[in-house]
Amino acid sequence: MSVLVVGSVALDSVETPFGKADDVIGGSATYFSASASHQTPVQLVGIVGADYPTEKLQPLADRGVDLAGLEHADGESFRWRGRYRHDLNSAETLETRLGVFSHFRPKIPTQFRSAKYVFLGNIDPRLQLEVLKQVEKPKLVACDTMNFWIESRREDLLTLLKHVDLITLNDGEARQLTEQSNLVQAARWILDRGPHTVVIKKGEHGAFMFTRTSVFFAPAYPLESVFDPTGAGDSFAGGFMGYLARTDDLSEASLRRAVIHGSAMGSFVVEGFSITRLMEVTRADIDARVADFHKLVSFDAKLPV
Amino acid sequence: MSVLVVGSVALDSVETPFGKADDVIGGSATYFSASASHQTPVQLVGIVGADYPTEKLQPLADRGVDLAGLEHADGESFRWRGRYRHDLNSAETLETRLGVFSHFRPKIPTQFRSAKYVFLGNIDPRLQLEVLKQVEKPKLVACDTMNFWIESRREDLLTLLKHVDLITLNDGEARQLTEQSNLVQAARWILDRGPHTVVIKKGEHGAFMFTRTSVFFAPAYPLESVFDPTGAGDSFAGGFMGYLARTDDLSEASLRRAVIHGSAMGSFVVEGFSITRLMEVTRADIDARVADFHKLVSFDAKLPV
Repeated sequence: MSVLVVGSVALDSVETPFGKADDVIGGSATYFSASASHQTPVQLVGIVGADYPTEKLQPLADRGVDLAGLEHADGESFRWRGRYRHDLNSAETLETRLGVFSHFRPKIPTQFRSAKYVFLGNIDPRLQLEVLKQVEKPKLVACDTMNFWIESRREDLLTLLKHVDLITLNDGEARQLTEQSNLVQAARWILDRGPHTVVIKKGEHGAFMFTRTSVFFAPAYPLESVFDPTGAGDSFAGGFMGYLARTDDLSEASLRRAVIHGSAMGSFVVEGFSITRLMEVTRADIDARVADFHKLVSFDAKLPV
Repeated sequence: MSVLVVGSVALDSVETPFGKADDVIGGSATYFSASASHQTPVQLVGIVGADYPTEKLQPLADRGVDLAGLEHADGESFRWRGRYRHDLNSAETLETRLGVFSHFRPKIPTQFRSAKYVFLGNIDPRLQLEVLKQVEKPKLVACDTMNFWIESRREDLLTLLKHVDLITLNDGEARQLTEQSNLVQAARWILDRGPHTVVIKKGEHGAFMFTRTSVFFAPAYPLESVFDPTGAGDSFAGGFMGYLARTDDLSEASLRRAVIHGSAMGSFVVEGFSITRLMEVTRADIDARVADFHKLVSFDAKLPV
């Protein structure tokens, strides 16, 4: 099965303690697609300006990302400029220029409308709802969001929750949305409002997946060096959704493996700027990291006599 | 096998968003003993003042904590007063009165000197070294420490590292000691200086165990309500060391199960003030929580065809 993603396609300029990159390709849909394309074909819907170096997206197209839904508009592309300090835990945004992204109205190409796996990247919940009107009968709809929409579009976001099966958000966003400081209670609050699955991402501290009957936890992979954290959350989502779409299996066991695939992709992307590492790694690398995750958390619960 | 612990025996006054407790029993050796005594007999070495309500330690004695090494000195007992704000992540110390603890010189009773499992709680590294001179031939020596000793007794702490097999410390302390912000690099720094095993506790974010050839991670148990975080680290250490002493097995598999037992005890203690919950839980409760940890992280790494 292929997976449909709607989100931003941007140009990022990033500074970390280890280097600097200017106008490299970024955006939620870009990271998601680079990550998911290791598992399954991807259909991307987004918008870029006349200045976008579209040739840089060719490697994505070469790996099975269908760019038929990438709108080319007059004007400037979405640009983000940020900096990470030594601890790499949080980005300091130096500049955001939305450009054509501020007028984005997602148009789902006819051939994408039968998508069974849909990921609504972090855009205005009103647009996320518009996307849902354009798709036919997806098997799994997942969405992401952020603090800005939780503040400014709370009611729309709550409406959206009724129509999605799964939401991914980080721990701070989960607390902000639910006004619950405890993550178990926050997850329950969300589960009571629509989604059957909630994935709470804690960055370097791993990720929880809550369903109405289970809790699963995956650590972040203990890397010796993190080069650039940009895109980790979207790469996680891409690995997660890509795995589910590829296997077309929504059992608990499959969801757990999907979280680990997401975590694996998140651990790769931070090893370089932009999507560099995502384009380098092979399926064998991914499988090896999944096996490493298994070693990392495995223990035998049996007690000695 | 029994386990020997040297550390503080205190009176704590704690305020959390959920309640208040005055002059309840606390201290690193107390929490450690209450936790470890679920697994194995404990030998406690510490000091209290004339004002200590020693009858409150009787329940510990009843469960196999040998108090022959508890010195009763003239003067006031160690008192700590602290407060946790809504997020419960860090204690705000309102008052510390060391009392007789400031003159503590651990004296290991003759019958404790053959201890095979020794835990040097968080005291002056010079005293931790003095303890090691008094024990005969332990199979495993573990120590804890804190920011205060890392700053003020750095050289002694580095000497101590050469003589311990294992160290437990939190992530902030690991970074402070090693001047490495990356925890994998911090662990390697410590492993290069003596211990064969390093346990880095991350509080609500779980714990890493590093050896020279492996990494293991255990999440914190996702509790719906944390009542009072005091003593979580010492209860972790007690569950960890108690399990190792009980099984007398230092294999990788056993060390991993020990980390989970530590995490289980840490998850119980925070459900109430002082050692209340540690005294209530049964071996069956502990085994059930260990099984829950297994469910929490388990996934099948096999890929579908």
